[in-house]
Amino acid sequence: MKKLINDPQNVVAEALLGIEAAHPDLNVDHQHKIIYRADAPRRGKVGIISGGGSGHEPLHGGFVGLGMLDAACAGEVFTSPVPDQMLAATKLVDGGAGVLHVVKNYTGDVMNFEMAAELAAAESGAQVVSVVTDDDVAVQDSTWTAGRRGVGVTVLLEKIAGAAAEQGRSLEQVAEVARQVNANGRSMGLALTSCTVPAAGKPTFELGEDEMELGVGIHGEPGRQRVPMATAREIAEMLVEPVLADLPFTNGDKVIAFVNGLGGTPLLELYVMYNEVNRILTGHGVQVARSLVGSYITSLDMAGTSVTLLKVDDETLSLWDAPVKTPALRWGI
Amino acid sequence: MKKLINDPQNVVAEALLGIEAAHPDLNVDHQHKIIYRADAPRRGKVGIISGGGSGHEPLHGGFVGLGMLDAACAGEVFTSPVPDQMLAATKLVDGGAGVLHVVKNYTGDVMNFEMAAELAAAESGAQVVSVVTDDDVAVQDSTWTAGRRGVGVTVLLEKIAGAAAEQGRSLEQVAEVARQVNANGRSMGLALTSCTVPAAGKPTFELGEDEMELGVGIHGEPGRQRVPMATAREIAEMLVEPVLADLPFTNGDKVIAFVNGLGGTPLLELYVMYNEVNRILTGHGVQVARSLVGSYITSLDMAGTSVTLLKVDDETLSLWDAPVKTPALRWGI
Repeated sequence: MKKLINDPQNVVAEALLGIEAAHPDLNVDHQHKIIYRADAPRRGKVGIISGGGSGHEPLHGGFVGLGMLDAACAGEVFTSPVPDQMLAATKLVDGGAGVLHVVKNYTGDVMNFEMAAELAAAESGAQVVSVVTDDDVAVQDSTWTAGRRGVGVTVLLEKIAGAAAEQGRSLEQVAEVARQVNANGRSMGLALTSCTVPAAGKPTFELGEDEMELGVGIHGEPGRQRVPMATAREIAEMLVEPVLADLPFTNGDKVIAFVNGLGGTPLLELYVMYNEVNRILTGHGVQVARSLVGSYITSLDMAGTSVTLLKVDDETLSLWDAPVKTPALRWGI
Repeated sequence: MKKLINDPQNVVAEALLGIEAAHPDLNVDHQHKIIYRADAPRRGKVGIISGGGSGHEPLHGGFVGLGMLDAACAGEVFTSPVPDQMLAATKLVDGGAGVLHVVKNYTGDVMNFEMAAELAAAESGAQVVSVVTDDDVAVQDSTWTAGRRGVGVTVLLEKIAGAAAEQGRSLEQVAEVARQVNANGRSMGLALTSCTVPAAGKPTFELGEDEMELGVGIHGEPGRQRVPMATAREIAEMLVEPVLADLPFTNGDKVIAFVNGLGGTPLLELYVMYNEVNRILTGHGVQVARSLVGSYITSLDMAGTSVTLLKVDDETLSLWDAPVKTPALRWGI
């Protein structure tokens, strides 16, 4: 295992020190491993928190800031944060208008966020609504989930719901925006290599030199099938066609097209992929209104990609275009 | 070799199609492999172009846009663009105020940019000034250079000189800003793994499971020495101390601290590195005025990192903070 780390047991805590040092707009609660806006809580604004196991950076900590998340809870690598973390984060960002929990559909995360919401209501009377993302079309149930896994749509949801909250909308309105994003988004991923969890010290799974894992999860969970190595064009078809068929997306739909790198894949390859994805969408009459190309929801050092499509209307687009100021997504400010 | 590509010979051309599709503010001249601002040339503004071999993305194409480059020429992977490309780019962006060529110090790049400048002067009377970056302290001469290699400072220079050009400064003034950035910046890198050039199909160099290449170049050129695997803390010392000693940076200096990933290294590890770099700088009394953490000048899929420090004054910081709107760096707009 070759990694830029010190103690494999201490990677998350040390990365949080780096994030705190690099980003003056953000504070870190090291005890609870929470990254939060330095200006939290914002009086009268719905607070939005998310979180999950680490190893998916920049998700979620890199999306904390104006127009997106108010706080993110970092679990250990690929391990859900505990309810105390989400409880502390909820209190940190509650400006009196309630708090939205954005939860990727993994059993541990769902359970722990639920417990935190109950504790918050009991302790401080905080209003909490949870929205669970489950956009991965690859498999119905999975190693760590009942139902579909939450993946790339989470990034888009955090941006779009974040903009709605910034506009001063109510908790129920922000939650409804978030639910609509999840309902209109679909994703699928593919691994060229395994990732290596620092504390494990060896690859999570074995993959032959001529094999890919189609439908891989962001923790290296098995997908639909092992398939032989293929070209970017073939890979794009393997990912985009099931995504298109699932919603379904149809001729005339407008989408945000998000081609994501899984951590070990360079940007050059992601643009080759984006060209293929865009070609397929054009062939289906699906119009790309906005695009996002880069490594935004990763699986440590895994080489591979995922494709997320989100069907949008003008209202959703205007929320997407609204100003955002976070370490990983920034525009308009 | 596992890559998200189609034909290894066609990677750059296809990535350019992807970049064009993903970024409506940019145009691509596919014949000359030039990415340029859709609003070029800007009348009365100094044009800034750069370029070099591909494989370092987002450098340079990802830095084209308002407040940074007007155009970038893409060579084949790790191969200098030819003079015709820089000539065409120079003409595309010449708004009558002259054109700055930003050239990383590699023999092919320097020679070809020089020839393009002569051709441009002869053909269109364009005023061209070249500034060469040579910030890599690792080795004095190298596989592809006489003198030091140009690396991370190039990113900072393109941003800062781009802001100066956007303010309407003269060609000589913008060039002087660029020269000062190069003079005040130093870098050094380290590889955990080799990169693999698509057309070669195998790693550029061999590196044992317990070895790192200290002072590696961005094409996998040999550095100072092979050293045993070490912790992030030790690696930060190996990189930062020679950089600090070279300028030298001293107690009370203000810097932009740039911790860069080489393409295959995830963000989580870069933040662990940033924490160590920041700690060392603090120990030397060097004040980090701004930071940049991410993969901005890469070497295909190489795992590893580089550290760049740039000594800054308030004037340089205000140019750094000025609005920029490119695919890879964006703020203030």
